[in-house]
Amino acid sequence: MTERSWWGWGTVDRALSDDECVALAAGLPGLLGRPRAVPDLAGLDLPAPRVTPPAALAPLVSTAVADRAAHTYGKAYRDVVRALAGDLRAAPDAVAFPRAEGDVVALLDWAGSAGIAVVPYGGGSSVVGGVEYRGDGPVVSLDLTALDRVLEVDRVSRAARIQGGALGPVLEDQLRPHDLTLRHFPQSFEFSTLGGWLATRAGGHYATLHTHVDDLVESMRVVTPVGVSESWRLPGSGAGPSPDRLFLGSEGTLGVITEAWMRVQDRPRFKASASAVFPDMAAGMSAVRAVAQAGLYPANCRLLDPGEAALAGAAPAGECVLVLGVESAVHPVESRLAELVEIARDAGGTVTGADGGPDRAAEAWRSTFLRMPYVRDGLARMSAIVETFETATTWDRVEELYTTVRTEVGAAVEQVTGAAGMVNCRFTHVYPDGAAPYFTVVAAGRPGSEVAMWDDVKAAATEVLGRLGATITHHHAVGRDHRPGYDRQRPEPFALALRAAKAALDPAGVLNPGVLIDPPARVRS
Amino acid sequence: MTERSWWGWGTVDRALSDDECVALAAGLPGLLGRPRAVPDLAGLDLPAPRVTPPAALAPLVSTAVADRAAHTYGKAYRDVVRALAGDLRAAPDAVAFPRAEGDVVALLDWAGSAGIAVVPYGGGSSVVGGVEYRGDGPVVSLDLTALDRVLEVDRVSRAARIQGGALGPVLEDQLRPHDLTLRHFPQSFEFSTLGGWLATRAGGHYATLHTHVDDLVESMRVVTPVGVSESWRLPGSGAGPSPDRLFLGSEGTLGVITEAWMRVQDRPRFKASASAVFPDMAAGMSAVRAVAQAGLYPANCRLLDPGEAALAGAAPAGECVLVLGVESAVHPVESRLAELVEIARDAGGTVTGADGGPDRAAEAWRSTFLRMPYVRDGLARMSAIVETFETATTWDRVEELYTTVRTEVGAAVEQVTGAAGMVNCRFTHVYPDGAAPYFTVVAAGRPGSEVAMWDDVKAAATEVLGRLGATITHHHAVGRDHRPGYDRQRPEPFALALRAAKAALDPAGVLNPGVLIDPPARVRS
Repeated sequence: MTERSWWGWGTVDRALSDDECVALAAGLPGLLGRPRAVPDLAGLDLPAPRVTPPAALAPLVSTAVADRAAHTYGKAYRDVVRALAGDLRAAPDAVAFPRAEGDVVALLDWAGSAGIAVVPYGGGSSVVGGVEYRGDGPVVSLDLTALDRVLEVDRVSRAARIQGGALGPVLEDQLRPHDLTLRHFPQSFEFSTLGGWLATRAGGHYATLHTHVDDLVESMRVVTPVGVSESWRLPGSGAGPSPDRLFLGSEGTLGVITEAWMRVQDRPRFKASASAVFPDMAAGMSAVRAVAQAGLYPANCRLLDPGEAALAGAAPAGECVLVLGVESAVHPVESRLAELVEIARDAGGTVTGADGGPDRAAEAWRSTFLRMPYVRDGLARMSAIVETFETATTWDRVEELYTTVRTEVGAAVEQVTGAAGMVNCRFTHVYPDGAAPYFTVVAAGRPGSEVAMWDDVKAAATEVLGRLGATITHHHAVGRDHRPGYDRQRPEPFALALRAAKAALDPAGVLNPGVLIDPPARVRS
Repeated sequence: MTERSWWGWGTVDRALSDDECVALAAGLPGLLGRPRAVPDLAGLDLPAPRVTPPAALAPLVSTAVADRAAHTYGKAYRDVVRALAGDLRAAPDAVAFPRAEGDVVALLDWAGSAGIAVVPYGGGSSVVGGVEYRGDGPVVSLDLTALDRVLEVDRVSRAARIQGGALGPVLEDQLRPHDLTLRHFPQSFEFSTLGGWLATRAGGHYATLHTHVDDLVESMRVVTPVGVSESWRLPGSGAGPSPDRLFLGSEGTLGVITEAWMRVQDRPRFKASASAVFPDMAAGMSAVRAVAQAGLYPANCRLLDPGEAALAGAAPAGECVLVLGVESAVHPVESRLAELVEIARDAGGTVTGADGGPDRAAEAWRSTFLRMPYVRDGLARMSAIVETFETATTWDRVEELYTTVRTEVGAAVEQVTGAAGMVNCRFTHVYPDGAAPYFTVVAAGRPGSEVAMWDDVKAAATEVLGRLGATITHHHAVGRDHRPGYDRQRPEPFALALRAAKAALDPAGVLNPGVLIDPPARVRS
């Protein structure tokens, strides 16, 4: 078992070495000469805990510095920078580790009666301030990772009852003996939980069709402060507004997801992939739209812009690349791939890898993809500003969005940092009616000012997305960082309904205050 | 323009003649010797209207007997029976016909201030008591069919902005010049509206994948008593719980859907279909499950049980039939059909029609399907008891559900009517994790007792669905008739949230009282 990093992404052993950090400067002028040191946990001052659990709950509650430090933030860039600076003022007073659903009920009861805020915490991989408490009162982080079992498998219906705290690899390991897979692979897969995916409407493996984990849900079990909500196992229903859809995306504000029946898959036996290179993004976008509108539903369909493709070594300079993949548990998929390739060729693409041989463009990009968060942490240690944000918009506005974001966020970066930065883009998910572009911004920052500079770049990105009517988040969630964009996007009557639902389910306002909706006055005061 | 029936399904010219009604008795002993007469509207007593619209709204409001009679009920069996009996005590005091969204706003304002209940009314095809007011106070039926335009077409994104009152053929006629189609074809297609489909989460054309109209929604515009809610046009988003999903299935209780951006399709150029006959339902169910789990997503995939297949002349006696169809706007579909046919053959099916020739089993069934509601009205005139109800459950329980419903509802029919009736079944939609069986019950009833007898049969069906954990409705909606089953199915915390949302959006409780949730005390008293 490798050790989890308390300050950065993933596991300690995979963090960039000091030498690797220094090497990053070759690609980005203006970085520090040597990386900022990672502070020693033992030397950090944390505020004294203000909570005392009742005796029955005491064995579940830790006030150890290591636990509190590791649960202070998610894994956003600004979280990493603050942790590196030793700033743990926002640390929770305690971390609770329920071992069963009854523990969750008891912990919420205690918090409600004692006026303690509760932040549900899965893998802690939020990059949007989803698990960071920004209030003044006492707060407990509710770490659900001990609820990690696959409790039941229904092979006939291809469904599994899984606890909310199961990390990706933990649940896949339990499904494998049944020759089944959930096949939901967000970039955070190793370090995020089923409950976290459901609470944030995570985006996963499938680039088309079942893009969000929402689509894989058969029923959910949610502990709310006023009782347990459990929907029936149904393949489909038209009985009123979907109960599950209220809790999907509720980001820990309405309840704690303890279990879900998930639609699982037979493991794919047939796979095929290919890549197509296009001379520019306009051509690439036109091709990926044709693919998305053909009704073929490829499992993979990612368009890398010239910057992204070059970084991954996936295409010649200035060109963009479309990575296509199909899979099936039942039938060979070559004919499906051939149909996709035909569309890409018709759109002017030069196809490689469709002969069944290794698809080097896809492989190059995939390994870069998994390494990316560790590189980001290395960049943060070198005082770079790094932001990834994602959105979605309809096809009629996709090209304008791509161009405008690159221009305006690029200008903001230059204004904030004094030098040009990198603004790359890939399309992570595509739909018949639009696409989900994902932007990566990197620039050299000033030591000590990274958070403020990041905030300025983020504000520019939020402004342009809002102005163009593109969603503030396609799959990273809202958390606290996306609240301004979310408030702009959300229809006001829906805000009223959500606030009323929150007050009904969480009357004491203990659950994840500040996320999605403002806490009720009784808690804020 | 053919005249709509005020008492029964569809258009007057397609209702069964008296002779056709009498002929039904050949297939069902115990019916009347001659059909009950359709009452003359002019001879019916309606309660005096109790509402007076303000002068500005008066031109939009009708108290004509024909309007009030036609808007008293939906088109459930019990609606038809009561209309045939001349029972129009539940008639709305008036019918409002808004011509623009501003009219809807003004009418809701008036109703809220005057304490008048409002029942949103699209095509009026509800078969679950969705548009019938059962309270004591004044009520206005809000007929939205004048809001029937396709306002905007975005060819690039394949989306169209359509008003909520557009009937199926009306919106398809406007999409056709753009070579586009919504391709949502519920059985009620001719007599139901986009807004009605959205408010009830209607099930349509696609037997797999995009089974409900929900999946075709890009954004919605809803007039609530506290303001207009409009979601952004987005192909996908992970920004909090979906606003659209709260209004989808809200059945007129939270607001009036005036517009939606819908995902439309290129018209299919390639189609292929085939049928497979199976010796019994166990074999048919096993085959349809294999098809549903193969990831091929056929457009059509309907399993008819022996009774249903025999009625349609689609299979030899005692056998069941699986109808399969594939379609594409881009590529030939023969290879896809071949894969489906292979699965059906592997499961023991005898395949017909896969050679590209006419598929007679499918055609026979389709014509029966469209004629069905008119036949039901003829049966009602002959004093038969007729009920159709649909549900969904996971594959592990599908066979038990099929058997138990046929046994127990069959027993209830016999107990209620004193003779055996018919309980047939088809699967209208299938999923990787389950299926949606649709049951048709027909039996001879006693004149004057039809509604009471129907209620007893319905209670038996509701009980068995609830006991087996199958949904009270897969796509007919909840209305007033399904409230007991819905209340059992709905998680209690979600009921609290929905009630709170309703109070926030409709503080005067004017919108469709009694549907989904009880009206707040201020209106009930």
